[in-house]
This record gives sequence, C-alpha cells and structure tokens, in this order.
Amino acid sequence: MSLVLYHAAPSRSSGTLFLLEEAGLPYEIRLLDLKNGETHTPEFLAINPLGKVPTIVHDGAVITEQIAVTIYLGDLAVGKKLAPPPGDPLRGPYLRWVAFYGSSFEPALIDKALKRESGGQAMSPYGSYEAVVRAVSAQLEKGPYWLGETFTAADALWGSALAWTSSFGLIEKTPAMAAYLDRITARPAFARAKEIDARLSA
Amino acid sequence: MSLVLYHAAPSRSSGTLFLLEEAGLPYEIRLLDLKNGETHTPEFLAINPLGKVPTIVHDGAVITEQIAVTIYLGDLAVGKKLAPPPGDPLRGPYLRWVAFYGSSFEPALIDKALKRESGGQAMSPYGSYEAVVRAVSAQLEKGPYWLGETFTAADALWGSALAWTSSFGLIEKTPAMAAYLDRITARPAFARAKEIDARLSA
Repeated sequence: MSLVLYHAAPSRSSGTLFLLEEAGLPYEIRLLDLKNGETHTPEFLAINPLGKVPTIVHDGAVITEQIAVTIYLGDLAVGKKLAPPPGDPLRGPYLRWVAFYGSSFEPALIDKALKRESGGQAMSPYGSYEAVVRAVSAQLEKGPYWLGETFTAADALWGSALAWTSSFGLIEKTPAMAAYLDRITARPAFARAKEIDARLSA
Repeated sequence: MSLVLYHAAPSRSSGTLFLLEEAGLPYEIRLLDLKNGETHTPEFLAINPLGKVPTIVHDGAVITEQIAVTIYLGDLAVGKKLAPPPGDPLRGPYLRWVAFYGSSFEPALIDKALKRESGGQAMSPYGSYEAVVRAVSAQLEKGPYWLGETFTAADALWGSALAWTSSFGLIEKTPAMAAYLDRITARPAFARAKEIDARLSA
C-alpha cells in the first residue's frame, strides 16, 4: 500500500496528519511550503488543480478536499473505529457533521474573517453565522466527543478546526469548547502530529 | 424502513429527489415552501437548525448537508451501483468530487453571484473561480459520466447543480457540459423528479 500526504506545516492539512496518526496507517509526507508557492507549482497543480492541502494519493488515486480525505481515511483504517460503518445508526450523523464543516462552518467563518455579509437564506450555503455557531455549541454540549462516547475522524477534523479558528478569534471559545479541545489535544496522536509539524516547519 | 425527505420544490433538494428516484428506495416527501418561510419554523429548525434542504431522516437519524445526504443515499441503495464501495479504486475520486461540490464549487459560484472577490489562497476554500471552472471542465471532457463509464450519485449532484448554475449564468455552458446535461436529464429518474417538482410547486 502506498499512501502519500501532501502537507503544509502547519495548515488545514495538520488535521489530516493528526488523523493519519490516529489511524496508524503507514504514510509518507510530501512537504509543500505555502509561503514559497509550492502548492502552486505545475507539478502539484497537476495533482490538485486547486493547489490545496490536504491532498492524498492512495495507491495512485488522488483524493482532494478535506471532507473527502477525512471520510476516506476514516473508512480506510478498518478496525480503528474512526468512522461508523455504513449501516451503523451513527453513519448518517457522522457524514452530516463532517460535511457541515466544509459546506457550512468554513464558509461562515470565512465570511466572518473577511467581514462580509452572508449571502442570505436563498444564496448562502449556511444562512447565518449565529445559527452555525449555535449548532456547533449544541453539539459540543453533548460530548464528550463530536458524535458521543467515541472518538472518530470527525473529532480530528473538528478538534483541529476549532483549535485554529478559536485561536484566531473567529469563534468564541466557550467552556464546553475549551473542555473539548483539552480532550482532543491530550491525545498522543495529536501530540505526535504537533511534533512532526514543529520539526517540519523548523 | 422509514425515509423522509424535507424538500422545497424546486431547490437544491431537487437533486436529492432525483437521486432518490435513481435509488428506487421508498421515501416520503415533507414539502416546505421556501417563500413562506417554512424552512425556518420552530418545528423544522428543531430538525435542522440551519433551516436547509435537503434534510433527510432515515429511521430516526437526521442527515443534513447535501454532500452528506448524497454520500449516505448512494451507499444506502445497495445493489444500485450509485457509489463505488469502500475498497473500490474509484471510492476516493467519488468522495473527492462530491465534497468538491460543497467545499469548492458552491463557494466559488456564490462569490461570483454576489460579485465578491475570493478570499485569496490563504483564506478561500477554493482559491480562484477560474481554477474551479477549469477543474470542472476537465472532468466533463473525460465523461460520459462524472467518474467515467457509470452513472453514480455524483452525477445526480453535479447534473442538478450544473443545470441550475448554468441556467443562471454562473458558469458557462460549454459543449461538453451541454452534452453531459443532455445525458443526465434524459434519464427516466430525472424526468420523474421533475414531474414531482412540477406537481408540488403547482
């Protein structure tokens, strides 16, 4: 098996690095320096024409988009229980919350960061920032993990995302969020990913 | 089995209606009138706090976000070959292109529709509108379906999306796109979904 992660350290792909460490799958990192434009060389654009990380290549198949990469790796790590399998009552909610990150949460936070209005109900993919934040808060109040009792790939995605968005002040770090982030960042796989990023960006 | 589609006719959820018709699964429609604010009643917000359709409820599990709904239903319709299963070499590309719709294509087209700049490489989820359109065009040139020889749930999503975005002038209808849309809209399931929408919106 060959599994390659195209990665910028640190960036959105750090969440994928964390997930790969949870998954215990053998993988290789191809480091791209965002500041030197290495995500936009002809070589990398031939792999991902949007020049985005994370991008993974598994046995020759290119998988881009953090949502797809998360779902794909969660299913690939058979036996690690990182994803409820098809047929499990949590499969739907799991897909819902992973997709929610890409289609609703990020667009809402980007509009917030750029000080733009949402496109309104008809046009916007998310509606209102407040509704998105309330939905996230309600999920965090349930805990301890995103889907309940067990850590899943959704936590690698949301844990990483809430860590950076709250540190940039794009979302308020409520007590429930702080407790959640403490739980996620205390995981050995998170520490290993952080260490790898520190080494790579040194 | 109980499967309910919360639907506005026509809207983004029309693509899900099309997919359900392809899937041949028994389902019920709960019609919501966007113009009367029926997606924002306390009853519906209790199901989907963002007030978005499509939302489905399958045996009590709520699944929101068109990306999640597409992946979920594609896997649910076992035997219909609407989704390459985990382990299939096309599983990754399939997830990639479904996720690409929600995380890159829609944000790019919404910025275009609202005449806004992209957030730039660091902030934007998609980078540049031109790169998104080029990636879509390259995929359409391969054909005949989104992932090659076989119709999948990705085609229900992309066929519906390209039909409305090209009709609104948000993306140019190239010859390859027109041929693709002809192939998709010629499907009996597409015609049935359109007929249902016409009846519901009458």
